[in-house]
Amino acid sequence: MNIDMIRAAADRLAGHARRTPLLSSPFLDEIAGRRVLVKPECLQHTGSFKFRGGWSAVSALDPETRKVGVIAYSSGNHAQGVAFAAKGHEVPAVIVMPADAPALKIANTRALGAEVVLFDRANESREEIGNRIAEERRLTLIRPYDEPQVIAGQGTCGLEIAADAKTCEIDEAEVLVCCGGGGLTSGIALACEADHPGLTVRTVEPEGFDDVKRSLETGTIQENDRRDGSICDAIITPAPGALTFPIMSRLCGTGLTVSEDECLRAMGHAFQRLKLVAEPGGAAALAAALFHGDDLTTRTVIVTITGGNVDAAMFKSALDTLS
Amino acid sequence: MNIDMIRAAADRLAGHARRTPLLSSPFLDEIAGRRVLVKPECLQHTGSFKFRGGWSAVSALDPETRKVGVIAYSSGNHAQGVAFAAKGHEVPAVIVMPADAPALKIANTRALGAEVVLFDRANESREEIGNRIAEERRLTLIRPYDEPQVIAGQGTCGLEIAADAKTCEIDEAEVLVCCGGGGLTSGIALACEADHPGLTVRTVEPEGFDDVKRSLETGTIQENDRRDGSICDAIITPAPGALTFPIMSRLCGTGLTVSEDECLRAMGHAFQRLKLVAEPGGAAALAAALFHGDDLTTRTVIVTITGGNVDAAMFKSALDTLS
Repeated sequence: MNIDMIRAAADRLAGHARRTPLLSSPFLDEIAGRRVLVKPECLQHTGSFKFRGGWSAVSALDPETRKVGVIAYSSGNHAQGVAFAAKGHEVPAVIVMPADAPALKIANTRALGAEVVLFDRANESREEIGNRIAEERRLTLIRPYDEPQVIAGQGTCGLEIAADAKTCEIDEAEVLVCCGGGGLTSGIALACEADHPGLTVRTVEPEGFDDVKRSLETGTIQENDRRDGSICDAIITPAPGALTFPIMSRLCGTGLTVSEDECLRAMGHAFQRLKLVAEPGGAAALAAALFHGDDLTTRTVIVTITGGNVDAAMFKSALDTLS
Repeated sequence: MNIDMIRAAADRLAGHARRTPLLSSPFLDEIAGRRVLVKPECLQHTGSFKFRGGWSAVSALDPETRKVGVIAYSSGNHAQGVAFAAKGHEVPAVIVMPADAPALKIANTRALGAEVVLFDRANESREEIGNRIAEERRLTLIRPYDEPQVIAGQGTCGLEIAADAKTCEIDEAEVLVCCGGGGLTSGIALACEADHPGLTVRTVEPEGFDDVKRSLETGTIQENDRRDGSICDAIITPAPGALTFPIMSRLCGTGLTVSEDECLRAMGHAFQRLKLVAEPGGAAALAAALFHGDDLTTRTVIVTITGGNVDAAMFKSALDTLS
C-alpha cells in the first residue's frame, strides 16, 4: 500500500468520480472558533466517498476476472459504491447487506442493478456469507476497507484535500475523518503524508464504537463490544483492518469521539449553513469540529462529510435540533 | 449589457465565488426520461447565486463611492449576497427586506453585518423605501436584477454552464432557470449565446406568478396580479426588468410554470438523490425537468438550483412528499 497506488487510482477515477470542492461558512467558523473547511463527499456519486474505492477496485481487476462479477458486504454506502462501479463497467454485482440497514440504501443498491443478499447483523457474519457466495459463484470479493485498491481509491479524496489546502495557503491543519474500518482514513493519511505533510489526520467515531481510538491508544487492534444500535450505521465496523491500522497508527493523531446527538446537531448545521444533506455517521467529523474544539490544535480544520444517505425520518430529527 | 461585462465580472469573482459543479443522478434521469444535469448554486456563498451579482456589483464600484456603503432591497437571497459582498469589501450595507421573508434569511442578513430595514410587502413599495434611504445616506443602490453589474455577475454562472456542457460533449440542451426578475436568466442567456449557442435558456416560474412567461408570449412586459402568497418567495418579483426583458425576449425559449407541490417534490428528490438542500423557488427548474418533460425538447436538460435558504419547517414539508 503506497502513494503510487493512490495516484494510479486517481488516474482511473478521472472523469468518473466527482472532484468535490472545499466548502465553508462564516457561521460554522464562529461556532467552531476556528476556520472550518468541509470536504462534501455526500456529493460524490451514490452519495458517499465509497464510490471512489468501488470504482478503483473494479477498474483495477483484469477484464477476464471482472466480467464474472464482483461481490461486496456493506452497511450500505460501500454497497452502492460497488454496485454503481460494477454497473459502470457493465459487470454483475452481488451485495451482502445487514437486514437493518436504512431502507433507502437497500432500495438504491437494488436500483443500481445489484443482487442484494440480506443478513442478520447481530447473529451472522457478513464475512462468512460474503466469502461463501464469492467462492460458489467465482466472484471477486471487494472488501469495504481492508483492500489495497479500495484504500487507494479512498485516498484520492486525500490528494484533492492536499491540493486544495495548498491553494488555500494552509500550512498546517488537522483533517478530521469519520472513521469506520479505516479505509478512507488511511488513504487520506497516505495522500497527505506525500503531498502535504502539514496536514494531520485524526479519526472521529461515535461514542461506544471507538475501536479505532482505543486501537491507536494501545497500539494494538481493539474491537467494539457492540455491533449495532447506533444511528451512525455507516461507521460502526467491528475493528480497524489489518491493512488500515498500521497506516493509521503511523500517521494519525489521537482519535476523537462524538455523541449521536452531536451528529444530529451537526447535520442540522450542514443543512442550514452548507445546504448539504449529511447522514449521522457522515456528520461525525463536523460534529467534532463544531463541538469538541478543545480537543483540536490547529487554527484551521478540514472536515470530511463522508455520506448523505439518510432517511427522511432521521433527517427530520436532525432538523429538530435547530429549533 | 454584453458578454465582455460578464467576462470582466468573472475575473473579479475569481477566488471569491465558488465554482459550482454539474451534478447528476441516474435516479433523476429515470424520472425525467432524459439526462438531467444540475448546477447547484445553493452551494454558492450565502446559499444562492445572488452572491455572484452582489460581489460583481460591489467590486465594480470605484473605491471612494464603495466605502460610503451600499443598499439593496430583496426578498432575502440578494440581501445576503450583497451583505456578504459588502462585508468582504469591508464597507457598510443596508438591506430593505419584506417583513414576511423567512426568519432565517433576515437573521442571516443581520449576522453578515448588514443593517436590516423591514417593510410590508403588500402595502409598501420596496423601491420607494430603498431609493429614499439611498438618497438620505448617499449609499449606492444595488438593484436585485435590473442592474448591469448584477446581471454580469449572475452571467458568470452561465459561463461555467457553457464550459462544463462542452466538457460533457453536450451539443444541444435546454437550460432551465428559476426566474424572478430575470437577472440570472438574462446573464446565463448572454453567456450561452457567446460561449455555447447550442444551449437555449428557458424560464421556470410558479403558477400564478408567471409574469416572465406572459411577457415572453406577448412581447411586452407583463405584471403579476399578486405580490405575495407563494412558498417560492425567492422568485415572485412583480415583473421582468427593463434591462433583463429585452435580453430574455431575444434569447429565451417559451416560459414554463410549475406548481408549489411540484417544487416541494423536487426538493425531496434533490434531498434524496443529490444530497442538496433546495428552497422552493430554487427547486422550480428541477420540478420542470422532472414533472414537465412533455414541454421540453432536448435529450439533455441543464437545471439550475438557484438557492437553498429554507426554514426547517418548510423542508419537512418537502421531505413529506417522499413517503
